[in-house]
Amino acid sequence: MSYTINELETPVPLVDLDRLARNLDRAAAYATEHGLGLRPHIKTHKSPRIASEQLRRGAVGLTCATPFEAEVMSSVCDDLLVAYPPVGQPRAARLAALPETVKLTVALDSARAVDDIAAAARDADRPIGVYVELDLGMHRVGLPRVEDALALARAVRDKAPLEFEGIAFYPGHVREPVDRQAESLASLSRAIAHAIETFDRAGYRPSVVSGGSTPTLWHTHELPGVTEFRPGTYVYNDRTTAAIGACAWDDCAFTVLATVVSTAVPGQAVVDAGTKSLGREPMRGTDSADGFGALLDRPEVSVKSMSEEHGILDLSRTEWRPSVGDRVRIVPNHVCIVVHLNDTIVGVRGDSVETSWPVAARGRGYEVELTANTSST
Amino acid sequence: MSYTINELETPVPLVDLDRLARNLDRAAAYATEHGLGLRPHIKTHKSPRIASEQLRRGAVGLTCATPFEAEVMSSVCDDLLVAYPPVGQPRAARLAALPETVKLTVALDSARAVDDIAAAARDADRPIGVYVELDLGMHRVGLPRVEDALALARAVRDKAPLEFEGIAFYPGHVREPVDRQAESLASLSRAIAHAIETFDRAGYRPSVVSGGSTPTLWHTHELPGVTEFRPGTYVYNDRTTAAIGACAWDDCAFTVLATVVSTAVPGQAVVDAGTKSLGREPMRGTDSADGFGALLDRPEVSVKSMSEEHGILDLSRTEWRPSVGDRVRIVPNHVCIVVHLNDTIVGVRGDSVETSWPVAARGRGYEVELTANTSST
Repeated sequence: MSYTINELETPVPLVDLDRLARNLDRAAAYATEHGLGLRPHIKTHKSPRIASEQLRRGAVGLTCATPFEAEVMSSVCDDLLVAYPPVGQPRAARLAALPETVKLTVALDSARAVDDIAAAARDADRPIGVYVELDLGMHRVGLPRVEDALALARAVRDKAPLEFEGIAFYPGHVREPVDRQAESLASLSRAIAHAIETFDRAGYRPSVVSGGSTPTLWHTHELPGVTEFRPGTYVYNDRTTAAIGACAWDDCAFTVLATVVSTAVPGQAVVDAGTKSLGREPMRGTDSADGFGALLDRPEVSVKSMSEEHGILDLSRTEWRPSVGDRVRIVPNHVCIVVHLNDTIVGVRGDSVETSWPVAARGRGYEVELTANTSST
Repeated sequence: MSYTINELETPVPLVDLDRLARNLDRAAAYATEHGLGLRPHIKTHKSPRIASEQLRRGAVGLTCATPFEAEVMSSVCDDLLVAYPPVGQPRAARLAALPETVKLTVALDSARAVDDIAAAARDADRPIGVYVELDLGMHRVGLPRVEDALALARAVRDKAPLEFEGIAFYPGHVREPVDRQAESLASLSRAIAHAIETFDRAGYRPSVVSGGSTPTLWHTHELPGVTEFRPGTYVYNDRTTAAIGACAWDDCAFTVLATVVSTAVPGQAVVDAGTKSLGREPMRGTDSADGFGALLDRPEVSVKSMSEEHGILDLSRTEWRPSVGDRVRIVPNHVCIVVHLNDTIVGVRGDSVETSWPVAARGRGYEVELTANTSST
């Protein structure tokens, strides 16, 4: 049966399957070439199906942020890093309850997190690996002083069944265009070298040094001592990734198909993809583009403003004048957010609908527990 | 069984049931007092349960944006307005397929939308009411020239089984603090009066004049000729609504419960609610507040920046220094977006967990159709 995107209700998220495969292949080849462990962050796709494709291409394991993501991914992978502080009894206990066949590692930066995950590990009678998280410039989580990180590694060693496995950092502050990252990467390299040396001297040589992002992906091998990297966005890519040169525009595999629903106000066109379909993510790392997404076939046309179900196209840089009923494909600024807004992704080749899959790890996965508890009040 | 929010996994959205009831009561009383038809927009809660509470208090019907919202709400209401252009065969057909017991009305602003919904109405052999949408200053959808709107009303009358029922507008541009809206409302009143007069003179007296929002809610009776209003946010309220004075801070019924997961970087605290829990919505209509949400008990503490699963608290205006593991309740800037990010809402009284309900109309509701179609390719 012939079935094209023209028959789909909009707004709907599409993934170009050929581009997806190319993106997966390229990162896998890079990891192999440089002897790096690719441990992709699944936050971008939240799909066991895409995760399986990453593992089949040689990924050493997966990175997750939430307990639910780890639960969903445990169906396809037995080596999971939860790169998020395991703080609080509910979160720690849920992580420790992952299938015993899963080698579980967490990243953390506080004594409280050590205590919480140690208690959960003891209760569940399972080993849990620990990366101590360093702040190497992003200033989000992670310990800024290496000495503090080392003290935490000591605390981990004292808390069996926790096992100190290495150090982690996230270079989310390196957002310059790829060809202008040299200075940031040099600074990052010095910080990494200092951390490794400090740990090593104290007898805590990290067997894993885990870092990396999509913006720095292709420079990971230039960071001395890094053994694994955790890019997420590279599977689909997005407008920001293309703008900083970490992918080509033609590597953007993910679009939102939308319909022009109004041209009543002169000089603009309104599509049915708004904040509930595109998110409201700014461009980062570049001053060359504004708006919240751009048309795949007309990158000069951006989504200049949005309401929840309305996106307003900026027609100031184009002669093109769409009609009500026309359809457009929008490359979002930040794809991870957009995936999270959807339940189902449609896989296409050209205009042909080939398949669809659920965003299985979207949400928190705790509905049943709440309802069950509630029924007894 | 005693069950408190302290036992909940975070991040989790909470609704204070007493505040919710108070918000519902207040708007219902206002509508009764002024003889206005309250047709709440369900985009804020997306829940048949809350919708039923609105209807029980006298709402004349419900307003929806998407076909899925209308499908879900048809289980509790037989008078639905879809205040969104019914453009494209899939969308129009899906609307026309709503249960026949539902009195369906759509708002539109183009000949193409008239054609699409007329074709669907004929195919389904059902009457569908039409509001012609005017742009009275928001410049999103709606016809700026009343004469064009009148021409569209004529086109509707020519397309049985469509029925011209009235005119609609959305005063989303009126975002000033409530006590400074006089000028905007006077201008809006003149535009409404002109539109009604023009339609009336041409023999198209609108039996319904539909407008209103939460920011202008309590001024609706000052808009001459308006017969119904469609506020959404008022059920939960949010930081923006409080900031412009359309509700008190204590009327904010919706919070996101979050846990402090890191204080490793000096001068800040990181909570586990980021863009995937809070959205990234700016404050609007006020210069007095920044950030993406504020603590319920410490409104001077805002969420100053976010990643997907991280929110960074701005501690510059407080002496309070939280510890890892502490919990906070965050009032989001824009609650409609936050509800849309969740599958389940937890109803509380004080710290006691009383109930939970699904965000039933979240998403698009077309997964099955896609999968079914796909299986035959």
